[in-house]
Amino acid sequence: MASSTATPEFFNLTFPGSHTAVVEINRPSKLNAFTEPMFHSLGQIFSSLSTNPEVRCIILTAAGTRAFTAGLDVTAASTSGPLANTPSNVDPARKAFRLRRHILDLQGCVTEIEKATQPVIGVFHGISYGLAIDVATCCDIRICSADVRFAVKEVDIGLAADVGTLTRIVKAGLPMSFVKDVCLTARDFGAQEALRVGFVSEICEGKDAAVARAKEIAAVIGSKSPVAVGTTKEVVNFSRDHSVEDGLNYIAIYNAAMLQTKDVDSAMLAGIRKTKPTFSKL
Amino acid sequence: MASSTATPEFFNLTFPGSHTAVVEINRPSKLNAFTEPMFHSLGQIFSSLSTNPEVRCIILTAAGTRAFTAGLDVTAASTSGPLANTPSNVDPARKAFRLRRHILDLQGCVTEIEKATQPVIGVFHGISYGLAIDVATCCDIRICSADVRFAVKEVDIGLAADVGTLTRIVKAGLPMSFVKDVCLTARDFGAQEALRVGFVSEICEGKDAAVARAKEIAAVIGSKSPVAVGTTKEVVNFSRDHSVEDGLNYIAIYNAAMLQTKDVDSAMLAGIRKTKPTFSKL
Amino acid sequence: MASSTATPEFFNLTFPGSHTAVVEINRPSKLNAFTEPMFHSLGQIFSSLSTNPEVRCIILTAAGTRAFTAGLDVTAASTSGPLANTPSNVDPARKAFRLRRHILDLQGCVTEIEKATQPVIGVFHGISYGLAIDVATCCDIRICSADVRFAVKEVDIGLAADVGTLTRIVKAGLPMSFVKDVCLTARDFGAQEALRVGFVSEICEGKDAAVARAKEIAAVIGSKSPVAVGTTKEVVNFSRDHSVEDGLNYIAIYNAAMLQTKDVDSAMLAGIRKTKPTFSKL
Amino acid sequence: MASSTATPEFFNLTFPGSHTAVVEINRPSKLNAFTEPMFHSLGQIFSSLSTNPEVRCIILTAAGTRAFTAGLDVTAASTSGPLANTPSNVDPARKAFRLRRHILDLQGCVTEIEKATQPVIGVFHGISYGLAIDVATCCDIRICSADVRFAVKEVDIGLAADVGTLTRIVKAGLPMSFVKDVCLTARDFGAQEALRVGFVSEICEGKDAAVARAKEIAAVIGSKSPVAVGTTKEVVNFSRDHSVEDGLNYIAIYNAAMLQTKDVDSAMLAGIRKTKPTFSKL
Amino acid sequence: MASSTATPEFFNLTFPGSHTAVVEINRPSKLNAFTEPMFHSLGQIFSSLSTNPEVRCIILTAAGTRAFTAGLDVTAASTSGPLANTPSNVDPARKAFRLRRHILDLQGCVTEIEKATQPVIGVFHGISYGLAIDVATCCDIRICSADVRFAVKEVDIGLAADVGTLTRIVKAGLPMSFVKDVCLTARDFGAQEALRVGFVSEICEGKDAAVARAKEIAAVIGSKSPVAVGTTKEVVNFSRDHSVEDGLNYIAIYNAAMLQTKDVDSAMLAGIRKTKPTFSKL
Amino acid sequence: MASSTATPEFFNLTFPGSHTAVVEINRPSKLNAFTEPMFHSLGQIFSSLSTNPEVRCIILTAAGTRAFTAGLDVTAASTSGPLANTPSNVDPARKAFRLRRHILDLQGCVTEIEKATQPVIGVFHGISYGLAIDVATCCDIRICSADVRFAVKEVDIGLAADVGTLTRIVKAGLPMSFVKDVCLTARDFGAQEALRVGFVSEICEGKDAAVARAKEIAAVIGSKSPVAVGTTKEVVNFSRDHSVEDGLNYIAIYNAAMLQTKDVDSAMLAGIRKTKPTFSKL
Repeated sequence: MASSTATPEFFNLTFPGSHTAVVEINRPSKLNAFTEPMFHSLGQIFSSLSTNPEVRCIILTAAGTRAFTAGLDVTAASTSGPLANTPSNVDPARKAFRLRRHILDLQGCVTEIEKATQPVIGVFHGISYGLAIDVATCCDIRICSADVRFAVKEVDIGLAADVGTLTRIVKAGLPMSFVKDVCLTARDFGAQEALRVGFVSEICEGKDAAVARAKEIAAVIGSKSPVAVGTTKEVVNFSRDHSVEDGLNYIAIYNAAMLQTKDVDSAMLAGIRKTKPTFSKL
Repeated sequence: MASSTATPEFFNLTFPGSHTAVVEINRPSKLNAFTEPMFHSLGQIFSSLSTNPEVRCIILTAAGTRAFTAGLDVTAASTSGPLANTPSNVDPARKAFRLRRHILDLQGCVTEIEKATQPVIGVFHGISYGLAIDVATCCDIRICSADVRFAVKEVDIGLAADVGTLTRIVKAGLPMSFVKDVCLTARDFGAQEALRVGFVSEICEGKDAAVARAKEIAAVIGSKSPVAVGTTKEVVNFSRDHSVEDGLNYIAIYNAAMLQTKDVDSAMLAGIRKTKPTFSKL
Repeated sequence: MASSTATPEFFNLTFPGSHTAVVEINRPSKLNAFTEPMFHSLGQIFSSLSTNPEVRCIILTAAGTRAFTAGLDVTAASTSGPLANTPSNVDPARKAFRLRRHILDLQGCVTEIEKATQPVIGVFHGISYGLAIDVATCCDIRICSADVRFAVKEVDIGLAADVGTLTRIVKAGLPMSFVKDVCLTARDFGAQEALRVGFVSEICEGKDAAVARAKEIAAVIGSKSPVAVGTTKEVVNFSRDHSVEDGLNYIAIYNAAMLQTKDVDSAMLAGIRKTKPTFSKL
Repeated sequence: MASSTATPEFFNLTFPGSHTAVVEINRPSKLNAFTEPMFHSLGQIFSSLSTNPEVRCIILTAAGTRAFTAGLDVTAASTSGPLANTPSNVDPARKAFRLRRHILDLQGCVTEIEKATQPVIGVFHGISYGLAIDVATCCDIRICSADVRFAVKEVDIGLAADVGTLTRIVKAGLPMSFVKDVCLTARDFGAQEALRVGFVSEICEGKDAAVARAKEIAAVIGSKSPVAVGTTKEVVNFSRDHSVEDGLNYIAIYNAAMLQTKDVDSAMLAGIRKTKPTFSKL
Repeated sequence: MASSTATPEFFNLTFPGSHTAVVEINRPSKLNAFTEPMFHSLGQIFSSLSTNPEVRCIILTAAGTRAFTAGLDVTAASTSGPLANTPSNVDPARKAFRLRRHILDLQGCVTEIEKATQPVIGVFHGISYGLAIDVATCCDIRICSADVRFAVKEVDIGLAADVGTLTRIVKAGLPMSFVKDVCLTARDFGAQEALRVGFVSEICEGKDAAVARAKEIAAVIGSKSPVAVGTTKEVVNFSRDHSVEDGLNYIAIYNAAMLQTKDVDSAMLAGIRKTKPTFSKL
Repeated sequence: MASSTATPEFFNLTFPGSHTAVVEINRPSKLNAFTEPMFHSLGQIFSSLSTNPEVRCIILTAAGTRAFTAGLDVTAASTSGPLANTPSNVDPARKAFRLRRHILDLQGCVTEIEKATQPVIGVFHGISYGLAIDVATCCDIRICSADVRFAVKEVDIGLAADVGTLTRIVKAGLPMSFVKDVCLTARDFGAQEALRVGFVSEICEGKDAAVARAKEIAAVIGSKSPVAVGTTKEVVNFSRDHSVEDGLNYIAIYNAAMLQTKDVDSAMLAGIRKTKPTFSKL
């Protein structure tokens, strides 16, 4: 498997077994706040993992005990980049063209998480603000430690969240009254509320326990047919954005190819024989 | 009302009153597992009930105490049908054409539940695996007994669920983190979790109590104007797959006809007089 | 700020500070039941508030202790208007043309709540039937008092809800089994069930406490950048009806203009300096 | 029938018989160029005609021999309104909020043409630039005189057309290579090219002949069942923006009401008897 | 190949070779006008042909020299069926429920033409009114004889076309001004106009020449890989109703299965060797 | 401006002035047939030009007199890559996963043409088969020389076109009967037919004349405000895939930023003064 030597700055990438990859945001001294280059690193890591046939599940976590991420590095952003002050004589339309391109670029980085062929389990702890929610809504499964503090923080820096939160949180199966509340007030919400509304599906005692739990889930997923798992993720995501009729049609043509896999034979035989099947890589 | 003499093998169809029909899957010796002909029987029963003007609500349940259904009859499926081993010299594209048609055919059978003019109440107990979820997501209202064990089981036999689960569960108003979790891990979930996330709207002590409760709900629905009930079901289902603007436009043209019914007069008059209205059949 | 002298009959409009407007339905002697002119008044109030740059959050409540609203004034509706008996010699198609236009007109009034530039907080108490749900599903945030009794009551008067409920409740992030249950049976549901399924995001002890709580939330929202808040509301609503791809594209072009605001500078600076920023009106 | 005394400035409204209304833009001294108030007048005229049951077809034309319209009155627009120079200290985001509202408002005026219950026949002659195309794409049927000069002129004043052209011309069934060509170069195209690509369906010798021809078409439409005509227009427009499946479903529920009209009996009987049916107003 | 003995009344079904099936409407004494049972026959014929692996292209034509079809048999329709006079005491809402179901049923019959796995070539001659257009817009390729007279005739019998025309003609790539003109006026249009606007792609001298030409086209299609042809038809139809992004995604998953066919090898080899490939049936 | 030294193999990139870039496919000895690396080169060239602020219009042409492109290099494709024979023991599902990814990758390369910020003018001559159509349907404006031979050639090599043709040709505003005809038969069509159906908007005598004409059009476009041109292209493309309502909303928010450009002032002033405006780069 690919060694982690080429991992970009502020990220760790490890492969603890069970076909699992662990991506760790690693800038704890700054509460894992994101600078612009970190967006691109994040995107590249997931883009690369997506075509790695050894990896069947990805865990996303962050170093340190205080924060998953505090979000955008506001100090950095206020001095350079699109949010920095620009000379007032710049044409607003030309500035808008560049801003639009810039936002689409950052969105593209975060979207790589969602586009990964494999399921992604997000593990959240401590301060999980702003960009943490953009990232979380790209994860397939979200779990957290008991001390987590989530917030859609963007209105507190004078802007609407624009790298995915406002679009994807609406599609996360959460009550809209809750969604509007947290998006419009930028208030914190903790583990219990996150579980009650369904933003996370499980709470663990601390961060370490949460990461350990994520590895268990990843190991279960890693033991299944990667054909079945990859198709399941793709079709669920497709269905989220399409009508029932389109979703049924899509899985029909998808499985027209995928049911020809040997994995079905292996799995059915194993089920009947009560043995554990193994599946070759994608 | 139509007698139940022509009910297909492995199904019971009864009419206990209150304009209610009860469809019972009846193959308890095999945990109500489905063979391919049973799909077609299921579709035909619902298609036929849909145009029966005496029926105003349908209950779907299953015989025996152990299972609503264990899902696909894997032993049967492994020896014949599309999941059976095929000679390796079959052209994969031609096989794919036939598989697509086959999947669309099975989907069509299950979709008849959703297309029924009348509301369908699903009552789940014991093992409710695989196809049970495809069926459940077609029901309008889901209740269960305390002993129910649900699972989106398909990845355990090496395939992505393709007769409706992956599309419809995304539209069932459930947290996506939960949806992905159960679809990707194939793990069980019980009555309490099902209630918490909203997959069922009510838990009863045992199967008999659950069926009895379903009959109560059905009787309430059966006492309402079938014009109002049929329109409500149709418009809610339409709205699920369309924008708010389209949904508003659809109910406007729908009710342009339906508000001309005598049932509105009857119901409003009964409301004012505190009497119980009766409504003629559709 | 505009005085409330021109407020239409059966409504109060006040401005208690913190950039907040409070709209109160005021026909308590009739349980705040709606006659047709009240629909138009409701629409006009929200349409007018929407372009009032002093207002950054709107609270919708109702006078009296017994009801938010009992819904349509059935007695009035049975004697005049589209639900009244018409001579039987009217051509059904011509009647349908008029009914469709009439329904679209009433929908348009209620939709003004959703279209308001500012967030709308609905505060529900006592009897909250029928039209109360049409209105509630247009609010961004819903809270209630402990004594609230919600019901999608329309099937009880022989018709499918047609001024918004059946379309918008499906988009409110609630379990569909619950949605179908309450829409098809017209049964009541109270504060605890509303909170559990997510229809409201908070319960207060009584109506006064709920209104006070709404004012607190409104004050928080009023303290944020109106550019950020307005964009957030607009993009969340847009995303509800569009694919993730379309949602991402929409916020990108939206923020291409909105990120040029001075509010970002002000807010980031205030965040770094730990001061409280102020924002000019829209 | 309503007299034309209240017709707004710069418009004439006449009713030459055959259930036809003729709207004439009347500012020939300025080549019928539009000031902002004229947008609102145009919208009000069509909104009012739409509910006039005596009118079964509307003709839109313009006074004078030189131009249908030269488009926006650029001289007026450069001194006041959203395109005028604004003080540079205005916040770009706040300016964008107001511009968006302003554009949506102007679009709404033009959209009233499309929303009219009755078919609208546009008759174009001479200079037909800019706004002429916005208006033309809202008409159901377009005919022209031989001397017409069409142009999507907006890029020549430094902006993309934003009151409808760029959206509706794409839906007008024209070759996209032609559409892009004329939208990106702002070049003129004449009657013959317009006919060849299908932008108009007929060319008449001069403006008077074109108006006369429009009256003939209007008289034919006016002799049909207004139920059939109104439904046809509505369903064609709906189908343009929806899938075939949605379109089929929409006409099915629409005609479920409309086929109950007496007009079908009258028309079928007249057809069999070879007589001319008459139909009552909508 | 299946013999034609079981062909329903008023239809001929023949197999002239080259993998071609010819469906002929055969009620020339009544200008091939359709009674209700003929709709169902038409649907059954195409449904059956669709799964016939020997058939690679279908031609639809009609017997006699005077008409493809005059449309609905109005005399029959006026005495029985949904357009017949009903007793005035029927509840309009219940009548609407039945009418909607009836229209959906007839639409379903006609839609079978579009759903056929194989391309369908429609050959039109003489009177081709009303239902002829519903049928024509379901055909993949339309050719005609020089004497054809098309008309969207429905408004002349007091109704909007509801078995497909108004929806599908909008998707046929024709100028909308033409579409609205012929749909709203019910006027005739002949071969030359049909070719100019693109409704037909070819004109032949007489009916016999047109049928002969259709057989040539069918033979060309029949000589291609049925995998390639079937996929092409399916993807073009899908793309008509979906965004470019969805269309690209659909062909990608479709061809993921279909490119595994041996036909690609055979065709590429034949192309290189300049020989004529043969392909096995689907 | 960037020199052309780094242009990839088999492509020329020149900048003849007037803000125009010319991309020339340059493998004339093989009729400009595409190997897989050429797809990626094509994508990279357009991706790079898209962000080049000096370029305001792009022309796409091909070297030599015989062909724009003969399409895929079939000889190369038959020996390596996804269409090459694979060992029969490869799991069909795993092969399908890779094929889907491969197709999406090639589509992405071609889509870069469509995504270019600037308008793209395609100039076609001689043999323009297969991939030529995929490419052509990504161009904004298509012109051709009189000797052009177009063909949607893919069914002749046993497959459905999968890098864009089948999706985009349906959105090109062409008659569907023509589209189906050429896609299903793979027959050639020449310049006159292409003009008649609207596939090209202009025919020039020879290739050189066509390139010269493209440069004239490019110079016209290059003389306009790049803000206006870029917005126009983006909004037309967006509208193609969205409803009229969505299209109107999109241009409204787009122009909320873009109307703040100085270009409007410059252009309006120049229009009034009859001078020629100049616009700064994007």
